[in-house]
Amino acid sequence: MSTSAPARPLQRAFNFNAGPAALPLSVLERIREELLDYRGTGMSVMELSHRSPEFEAINNAAEQNLRKLLAIPEEYAVIFMQGGGSLQFSCVPQNLALPGKTIDVLHTGAWTAKAIAELKKGFLHNIAASTEAEKFTRVPRPEEIKLSADSSYTYFCTNNTIEGTQYHSLPASVAPLVADMSSDIASRPIDVSKFGLIFAGAQKNLGPSGVTLVIVRKDLAERADKNLPTVLQYRTFIKEKSLYNTPPTFAVYVLGLVAEWLASQGGLAGIQKRNEAKAKLLYDAIENSNGFYRCPVETSSRSLMNVVFRIHDDEALEKDFAKGAAAANLVGTPGHRSVGGMRISLYNAVGSDAVEALVSYMREFQRTRG
Amino acid sequence: MSTSAPARPLQRAFNFNAGPAALPLSVLERIREELLDYRGTGMSVMELSHRSPEFEAINNAAEQNLRKLLAIPEEYAVIFMQGGGSLQFSCVPQNLALPGKTIDVLHTGAWTAKAIAELKKGFLHNIAASTEAEKFTRVPRPEEIKLSADSSYTYFCTNNTIEGTQYHSLPASVAPLVADMSSDIASRPIDVSKFGLIFAGAQKNLGPSGVTLVIVRKDLAERADKNLPTVLQYRTFIKEKSLYNTPPTFAVYVLGLVAEWLASQGGLAGIQKRNEAKAKLLYDAIENSNGFYRCPVETSSRSLMNVVFRIHDDEALEKDFAKGAAAANLVGTPGHRSVGGMRISLYNAVGSDAVEALVSYMREFQRTRG
Repeated sequence: MSTSAPARPLQRAFNFNAGPAALPLSVLERIREELLDYRGTGMSVMELSHRSPEFEAINNAAEQNLRKLLAIPEEYAVIFMQGGGSLQFSCVPQNLALPGKTIDVLHTGAWTAKAIAELKKGFLHNIAASTEAEKFTRVPRPEEIKLSADSSYTYFCTNNTIEGTQYHSLPASVAPLVADMSSDIASRPIDVSKFGLIFAGAQKNLGPSGVTLVIVRKDLAERADKNLPTVLQYRTFIKEKSLYNTPPTFAVYVLGLVAEWLASQGGLAGIQKRNEAKAKLLYDAIENSNGFYRCPVETSSRSLMNVVFRIHDDEALEKDFAKGAAAANLVGTPGHRSVGGMRISLYNAVGSDAVEALVSYMREFQRTRG
Repeated sequence: MSTSAPARPLQRAFNFNAGPAALPLSVLERIREELLDYRGTGMSVMELSHRSPEFEAINNAAEQNLRKLLAIPEEYAVIFMQGGGSLQFSCVPQNLALPGKTIDVLHTGAWTAKAIAELKKGFLHNIAASTEAEKFTRVPRPEEIKLSADSSYTYFCTNNTIEGTQYHSLPASVAPLVADMSSDIASRPIDVSKFGLIFAGAQKNLGPSGVTLVIVRKDLAERADKNLPTVLQYRTFIKEKSLYNTPPTFAVYVLGLVAEWLASQGGLAGIQKRNEAKAKLLYDAIENSNGFYRCPVETSSRSLMNVVFRIHDDEALEKDFAKGAAAANLVGTPGHRSVGGMRISLYNAVGSDAVEALVSYMREFQRTRG
């Protein structure tokens, strides 16, 4: 009897992509294990009807896992939509803007710019703060935020992937806070009760692309005009438990597995500790480089998710850095094409080993090229 | 040296789900094989950046495979959206309705009813034909269709999953034909040049849920008001090759693999032959049952994709049929919850072996219960 050839050892890349991004290996292994036969059904999870008891269980488990993980209060709905943050930029005002009232926006970079571009198509709005004059190298300070007396809601982006900034305390607002949390959802504990609505594409901290988590206070969903397309009304998803139309079943399944994995990592308190340690390692390496590496972001606004830095403001050097990094199995180090430099995304599924490997590479690069 | 335990033999269900539905086994095996390491990248396909050369190649290949498979002319764009047919019900009129002109609609059941419900939210429209009086047991005859003199477009649904009807020739129309082809796309050759726009959720004949194929004549995409949300304008997807925002990367990848598989099956001519043979087997079994099984659909409108039938108009018997079928590994036989009876979906990836197993079961069921 012949023995089978040894499997090629799996070499995982150290993945610093900005999203879609790294997923936990144990989740990928679980998906692979049950890909052809979801728990004895004889079908792939992709082949299950979305009206089957098996998929309803997947859908419910994903919701319940997220409710527990994020400590979401009962008066909030947890729904799964499609279209990503880009669809939410119009969905949010279409559902939550009140007639005659303005929308306050805190402008902190490329993602709020896209949200503002959609507001310009017919919604009253007010830029209540902007750090554009500082090239978005920080988020607004509390005293800089000039909210309207009576707005529909206050909109902001908790973490700015391109600029590498993050809010470390919530803006105060009487009107409901609405947050684009696409890039730091589930990376640290949050007090959901402070928000009216939170949305997040799953593809950074929660799963694959193709599914958008929306957490919305149920009473706010009733603001929407019933003439809005049915599939763009939050209330449709609330009423039908995200099963009004065919959901992205595979993405919801993976989202549920990632939420389970996050719970197994000590929940969001545990994840936060890991994320803080990972970011510290990298920011320290930058700070201790005698200026070879330089992070343009003001210390108090630095993101734990996306660490941006320049190398001597030298584009050629930065290109070499990225090239050498890729050769050393460190993927996704270049900054966003709109700003250049380097950007290292440290989402939940990026391990400390990856950051350690990167920091070693940075030291070596500086030693040879500095 | 010990040998590994034999793997549990895989028992695939015979899957007649209406969508999400069966996928080709070879595609699932390929996905499994490369799930942890997409072609030497050290990453799952879900972990690739949508801006990476690897994903751009996946995205391009999916488009090119579909262009070749469906013989799509150059003046048509092929784009991948999210939100399924349900989003297209509003997207189509938002993009293609011309000021002051009506939209002609051929009403053939539950899916056109949903499209009409969205038109009622502010779009001029005209029901140019309806078979509601016949309980949608056929599609309209050419002489029944009363088109407007000058409409924005003529809308219809090529295959009606719930009612089990399908057009076997195209309605004549001077205005652009717009088709919901969600449930029979790529099941037979079509002449794309006869259409202005075709949309289809992938989850029946083309892949998993979570991605929507839109084929649109490029000049028509320019009708849209630029104040429409950016992510709902076809022109955005055309301009950015479906990469304006983060696409559902995994679903696009699987869609591309399924398109490759369809090409390997003799293309759409080959697929059509298989689909005709599968449907004939089942319709013959119904016709030869001495009235025990009865298909309510008029012969000339019968769908090759979704075969609906009643069993003695007896709900209890139909429940027993479904229960026994499930026990015999035949999944997804009950009709849509809104109409009852049985429904057998015979999409591209359903094999002849599945239909043969079903027909055997039907004979045995009739022998013991007829």
